[in-house]
Amino acid sequence: MAKISEPTVRRLSHYYRVLEEAVVAGQAMISSHLLAEREGITSAQVRKDLSYFGSFGRRGLGYNVEHLRDEVRGILGLNRRWRVGVVGAGHIGSALLAYRGFDDKGFDVVAVFDASASRIGQHDGNLVIRDMATLSPADALDMGVIATPMRAAQEVADALVAAGVRGILNFAPRKLRVPREVTLRSVDMTMELESLSFALSQAHASRRRNAAE
Amino acid sequence: MAKISEPTVRRLSHYYRVLEEAVVAGQAMISSHLLAEREGITSAQVRKDLSYFGSFGRRGLGYNVEHLRDEVRGILGLNRRWRVGVVGAGHIGSALLAYRGFDDKGFDVVAVFDASASRIGQHDGNLVIRDMATLSPADALDMGVIATPMRAAQEVADALVAAGVRGILNFAPRKLRVPREVTLRSVDMTMELESLSFALSQAHASRRRNAAE
Repeated sequence: MAKISEPTVRRLSHYYRVLEEAVVAGQAMISSHLLAEREGITSAQVRKDLSYFGSFGRRGLGYNVEHLRDEVRGILGLNRRWRVGVVGAGHIGSALLAYRGFDDKGFDVVAVFDASASRIGQHDGNLVIRDMATLSPADALDMGVIATPMRAAQEVADALVAAGVRGILNFAPRKLRVPREVTLRSVDMTMELESLSFALSQAHASRRRNAAE
Repeated sequence: MAKISEPTVRRLSHYYRVLEEAVVAGQAMISSHLLAEREGITSAQVRKDLSYFGSFGRRGLGYNVEHLRDEVRGILGLNRRWRVGVVGAGHIGSALLAYRGFDDKGFDVVAVFDASASRIGQHDGNLVIRDMATLSPADALDMGVIATPMRAAQEVADALVAAGVRGILNFAPRKLRVPREVTLRSVDMTMELESLSFALSQAHASRRRNAAE
């Protein structure tokens, strides 16, 4: 299979949400138009994305909701459970531990680690916060979430990789180096706010230009 | 100015980080090669991005670090302060309030709101948690962060827009509708994990195929 781009994966996640809602609502069939229902996706794009995975709707009828839901779930790797470890038991780490949506999607947070001696041994949700030094391949983690301060992030990434983790979600605002076989995704909250300040500045500037004309 | 794509804005944020580090390190000049220093960016891309904003390096010398830092800061709208309101004083909201990086970049979190009667009136950092019903245009918020449960998110977005907010960062895992003049960015943590599970599944499948050959 050819390499699938990041935006395609995000659209698949979106279709999956819409399909899950349609199953709950008891819908049997769904149109590419309804699947597209989000700014920036056309129904032609939906048909292209799905045909890529060998799924074809029937003209005038659309797609079978349950069948397509199962198919997209499989493509996204959500038809199995994933063992997730969270490193950093601060606000973000705790938000992740408290978030119920993960469980529904097959992500089991099975371990939480912190560097602070005062936190190690405490409970966070159902888990006891562990010393990072106790992380080992025996934990059989599939994914790791880095929610530590910036300066610790690379060391933590290295330790996760050494313990066999193959996917890392990084919330620390710094660039991390991981081996080629490890998939890294980053969420940088400051970068998101910068994207807003950019858009608002451009809008201000354009209003000023218009007013001057 | 032509519309600048989201990936371009993210690259500008990245250049800004590198330039800030270079200023701290006392570097006077920087090459497009060093600015590119991240997977997936080429030095040709850097030169193209910057020429777009009228900034040209000198062959063999590169860019003047301080000058370019100031220029990129202006483009990103970071040469002024922005008033940010956070709605939802749970884990994510508190993480945002505790995060020091925002302040450095010009984002002042000036108000925090919650719907829970037990939280309203309590302190979160330096701020007193307010009832969402007290939000008004007098707050003069530029941006709002939605860190509420999914079901409340659209109502909160409407209230923020009514109070004059022009940029929204949404952490609630649902699609929001906002007027055209409002910029919306969303961070969906489950979607990030799905992007990892997709990548890990594809890697598994490819290893299985290789093993079978």
